[in-house]
Amino acid sequence: MPERLDILANPRATRVRYVAGLSRRSARQRHGQFLVEGPQAVRELLAHAPSLVRDVYTTPAVAERERGPLASARRAGLWVHEVTPEVAEAMSPDAQGILAVASLPVSPGVAALRGARLAVLLPEVSDPGNAGTLLRIADAAGADVVVVCRGGVEVTNPKVVRASAGSLFHLPVVTGVSFEAAAAAARAAGLRLVGADAHSRRDVFSAARLHEPTAWVFGHEARGLSPAERAACDELLAVPLYGAAESLNVAAAAAICLYAAARAQRSGA
Amino acid sequence: MPERLDILANPRATRVRYVAGLSRRSARQRHGQFLVEGPQAVRELLAHAPSLVRDVYTTPAVAERERGPLASARRAGLWVHEVTPEVAEAMSPDAQGILAVASLPVSPGVAALRGARLAVLLPEVSDPGNAGTLLRIADAAGADVVVVCRGGVEVTNPKVVRASAGSLFHLPVVTGVSFEAAAAAARAAGLRLVGADAHSRRDVFSAARLHEPTAWVFGHEARGLSPAERAACDELLAVPLYGAAESLNVAAAAAICLYAAARAQRSGA
Repeated sequence: MPERLDILANPRATRVRYVAGLSRRSARQRHGQFLVEGPQAVRELLAHAPSLVRDVYTTPAVAERERGPLASARRAGLWVHEVTPEVAEAMSPDAQGILAVASLPVSPGVAALRGARLAVLLPEVSDPGNAGTLLRIADAAGADVVVVCRGGVEVTNPKVVRASAGSLFHLPVVTGVSFEAAAAAARAAGLRLVGADAHSRRDVFSAARLHEPTAWVFGHEARGLSPAERAACDELLAVPLYGAAESLNVAAAAAICLYAAARAQRSGA
Repeated sequence: MPERLDILANPRATRVRYVAGLSRRSARQRHGQFLVEGPQAVRELLAHAPSLVRDVYTTPAVAERERGPLASARRAGLWVHEVTPEVAEAMSPDAQGILAVASLPVSPGVAALRGARLAVLLPEVSDPGNAGTLLRIADAAGADVVVVCRGGVEVTNPKVVRASAGSLFHLPVVTGVSFEAAAAAARAAGLRLVGADAHSRRDVFSAARLHEPTAWVFGHEARGLSPAERAACDELLAVPLYGAAESLNVAAAAAICLYAAARAQRSGA
């Protein structure tokens, strides 16, 4: 059994309301902290970004299942608090019995683009679920860095954190920069800017230069790339539509585009 | 201006409550009808499955924007009713000013697998958003038929309809059959059953036989394929993970797998 501290049992306690409040952007900004919910995300946070962790809250049942990672966390001097299922639920309906409060990560800045072979620029993805899924896909495809540009979704939104399934903690995620600055930095780092554009007549599967260092640009989920974003790209490529669908959602398109580049780079084509 | 009938203005009218009730499975089953919400989905329904349409409800503003499709619908003898924005919202918070009530489609049965070159079998996808997205991806990749097996999500759930972005009306969607029956029918139709399995050591990009008629099998979004589903497949293929992500979500994996087969079939490789 893990070491038991006094269990937190009052769902109306000040601390519970504080944690629950971090689901709001204003509270995250004011306190410089955000929520990481559920066993998988907490495990990934503890493994990949332990310096961000402030507090872990867990029910006894989940503490027992997660005793390996939690014992390491305690040895590293982190606070692990046991709470009743009611308190966990009051802190977050999506906690599944465990959550962490973490410090907002400091953006690594566009310098993280230097040396990258595969990067992802997101000028204005606005749906948190899409943003998190894109981080997960970028990670799976072996991208070196993702830039979520200023004006897009906030990456510490709980829905982004959940949808990223830990990938938020796996690779550098640059935030707070304009698309113009990100595009200039990518170009200076020797990356070709390739935009995913359903209107392009060039097919991603016939692209000749994806083996070169590439920064993929994925636009707004409904509107696609803006004229300025298109103009900033060295090449625009489409995922072909073989059936009657008018479009693919941005995550599916990004999966195909990123793996096309990853494969081209890995095969040395 | 479209022809104006008396506008339906009472959000508490019996008809409004009837339509709103179709968001519940029990009401859909009892009445044999389902909801199609939003301009894009209604447009696709009118264009691809007009025989299913029972009633269309639209605000005057949306009627004006959609006057082409709605005029065709009226000429074909369909009922188009104008409603106030409050009534549209009461019928469905996701209507965006227009929705249709349609008859539940009759499943084409596993005979729809005959002659298919690219099919999708979904033994137990349970999340409606995932199911709709998978229909859209299957459509985009040019699949001939999708089978959503008994026990999985109901394809006339409003979230499936919305996430499919019209693809539900573009290709035959077989429902109400067991995975065993679907697998047997696919095999009898000359399709190879290929399962997407993150644990397989065989890589989808190195697969040699995807140019042959293929039925892709995508398992439960969290648990993946069951042992019985794995055993039913002729081959199991994984999307490689090049970064630190533990897995891809089912829609991203399906996009990569289906396009790998579509490309192999189209290049005659």
